Amino acid sequence: MTPPAQINGARLLKRLDDFAAIGATPAGGVNRQALDPHDRAARALLTSLALERGFRVFQDPLANLFIRRDGKNNHLPPFLIGSHLDSQPTGGRYDGALGTLAAFEVLETLEDAQIETDVPVEMVAWTNEEGSRFAPGAMGSMAFSLGHIPQDWHDIRGTDGALWRDALAATLAALPIAEPRPLGFPISGYLELHIEQGPSLEKENIPIGIVTGVQGTRWLEVTVTGQAAHAGTTQLAFRRDPMAAVTSALHTLYETVMPADENARLTIGRIAALPGSVNAIPGSVSLSVDLRHPQADRLDSIETQVLAAFQDSAALHGCKVDIRKTFDMSPAPFSTAVIESVEQAARHLGLPFKHMVSGAFHDALYVARVAPAAMIFVPCRDGLSHNEAEYVEPEHSIAGARMLLQSTLDVPGR
Amino acid sequence: MTPPAQINGARLLKRLDDFAAIGATPAGGVNRQALDPHDRAARALLTSLALERGFRVFQDPLANLFIRRDGKNNHLPPFLIGSHLDSQPTGGRYDGALGTLAAFEVLETLEDAQIETDVPVEMVAWTNEEGSRFAPGAMGSMAFSLGHIPQDWHDIRGTDGALWRDALAATLAALPIAEPRPLGFPISGYLELHIEQGPSLEKENIPIGIVTGVQGTRWLEVTVTGQAAHAGTTQLAFRRDPMAAVTSALHTLYETVMPADENARLTIGRIAALPGSVNAIPGSVSLSVDLRHPQADRLDSIETQVLAAFQDSAALHGCKVDIRKTFDMSPAPFSTAVIESVEQAARHLGLPFKHMVSGAFHDALYVARVAPAAMIFVPCRDGLSHNEAEYVEPEHSIAGARMLLQSTLDVPGR
Repeated sequence: MTPPAQINGARLLKRLDDFAAIGATPAGGVNRQALDPHDRAARALLTSLALERGFRVFQDPLANLFIRRDGKNNHLPPFLIGSHLDSQPTGGRYDGALGTLAAFEVLETLEDAQIETDVPVEMVAWTNEEGSRFAPGAMGSMAFSLGHIPQDWHDIRGTDGALWRDALAATLAALPIAEPRPLGFPISGYLELHIEQGPSLEKENIPIGIVTGVQGTRWLEVTVTGQAAHAGTTQLAFRRDPMAAVTSALHTLYETVMPADENARLTIGRIAALPGSVNAIPGSVSLSVDLRHPQADRLDSIETQVLAAFQDSAALHGCKVDIRKTFDMSPAPFSTAVIESVEQAARHLGLPFKHMVSGAFHDALYVARVAPAAMIFVPCRDGLSHNEAEYVEPEHSIAGARMLLQSTLDVPGR
Repeated sequence: MTPPAQINGARLLKRLDDFAAIGATPAGGVNRQALDPHDRAARALLTSLALERGFRVFQDPLANLFIRRDGKNNHLPPFLIGSHLDSQPTGGRYDGALGTLAAFEVLETLEDAQIETDVPVEMVAWTNEEGSRFAPGAMGSMAFSLGHIPQDWHDIRGTDGALWRDALAATLAALPIAEPRPLGFPISGYLELHIEQGPSLEKENIPIGIVTGVQGTRWLEVTVTGQAAHAGTTQLAFRRDPMAAVTSALHTLYETVMPADENARLTIGRIAALPGSVNAIPGSVSLSVDLRHPQADRLDSIETQVLAAFQDSAALHGCKVDIRKTFDMSPAPFSTAVIESVEQAARHLGLPFKHMVSGAFHDALYVARVAPAAMIFVPCRDGLSHNEAEYVEPEHSIAGARMLLQSTLDVPGR
């Protein structure tokens, strides 16, 4: 008879502190960018902790790091739990690290309790989720889901000028003790714990979010062209002002898109007027539009609304509009079976939960293409993330780890 | 008995061509920036033309160039007519050049007709009106009105790295034949012919604008600060989006300020969102606001409207707003006496005219501080200026010169 499995909360919190020290910033955050020396140090520490517990350690050609605890049927594909260890340049202590270290805690807890799982359970730390040093993000999980490394990645350079392939080779070489493994081997499922990176769980005082999928995202690059002219000499009637046209279109969109649909997201993150003189009506204004929605058809109709708003207001102001779609990621629903086992775990543990859709990208988005997958969210203070002030209450970190353990025990076919 | 004074249109048009060749650009414009070799060549050509006609040539310490035709009472302050010879880097053939060469044509016409004026008449070409190579603009007329060179000008560097004081010294030295003259000597009045740099005369098919003053101008630098957050994870209710706040304020202002008052001008020439990521709600948005109006009290009330719009909409979006005034130029009314003599000249010549306020700065704005001054505008095609496509119909250039001549003959106390 095995003892009941019980997450060691103090150990998890200590691990979070220990890893936050690797790349710690003076302001209390973390700067541990993909494939940099701090990232390598974090991989090395996790590997040594794993080897102490007798777990096997693997890395694939993308430097995705796997820590394996064998189960009853070791010829069957493992069940994967984890997240990433890299951070934004002024990142926080929890984004990625919580999901990775909680997954390691699950392995240790299973080991402490001497529980033999049906299939092997493996912790994974995906390479370069953030994409801040080397773009694109989620390289590790994307290549894993593809089963190969896209050709055009080889010449990628980082923001620091480093060649991605050199940084990758150095990272792989720094961990010779890890056993090599092919890219994209079969897995039985994937579950990722992550901080919400938004405020809704905290505001509603709910400790657990069960993530049913990832929103679809579209990026539009809009340029409205009018006629540059003198700010002082040009009367209203003679203006073809692209800034006035953009303002009018955005006003319409801000007033309609999000107020009419709580699942819709409309964000203007970038805007510039050319030539950019205080005393000249701009000749053109360019801006980015980020649209998100969990449903593909709603995303279509919002995009149509955006096009119409800019076309109408450009026409009204004697301007022309050019709209290009620069990114289009379809909504990705997660596995119903994995979601149900997570719900069952929450009920088992008596933890209040709600279903939610992830507004951010995650490694799970890519892994879901090749295996049943889902995610668990826990609240973070003020919804802050990608920020040195990122903070998760200790009880929420522990509750997340408990959910991860219980779900791992409950997942069908695990 | 002297023959009637008659502008030599062909000669004026030839002069415009000859000077447009100095610094000509392939696209048909002019790049003759202040104190550069082309500017020096233009000064040299004008000087040689003046000496051929027996006029005296002077330059003051700012390299303002004066060409004098004596009158009956040469101990009295001269009446000044002119403009500037420098251009924008991709400027046109008429901005400044028309007013300068038409003034020279007035001197030649007076000479041809052997008219003896009561006071001396002098053509002036002010140094660096444009301010595109060396900022600020209107240095020549500003220093003339001050009677000294501001201390902080000495270390000004040009966009090409040149020291202003070196370029000035080289320009002065290049014209040793010009007699030196102190800065800011007494003058009896000033009249400047200039292209409108706006479309209203052309659209209304009126050849002459009589400029009653220069608008007041205020520049505000507005920063709205909210909370940077993830574009995908942050629901509307939790957003403190400075871009939404700015849009709402600008919408209100575009809908009210200019539509309610045809003399008001509101221009947003510069805008930027920080951090400027496609997928992040910006933490702050900064923009410039250029406000103009011929009446000081209206300018005050429009500024109050702008402040209120940003404060209200920032509050509505949970943002803060910071507004700094970076430039404040009071409206400058021109001399009633000079305006009246210009009106009389238009009636005398049978030329349709309208009164207008200049939306742009001009040298006349500074000269008006020390002497009775006014301006005459002629139409330019499509209102285009500061543009290589700048164009003035020959008959409008000639009509402008005729007005300048007739007004010079009519100015009281001239």
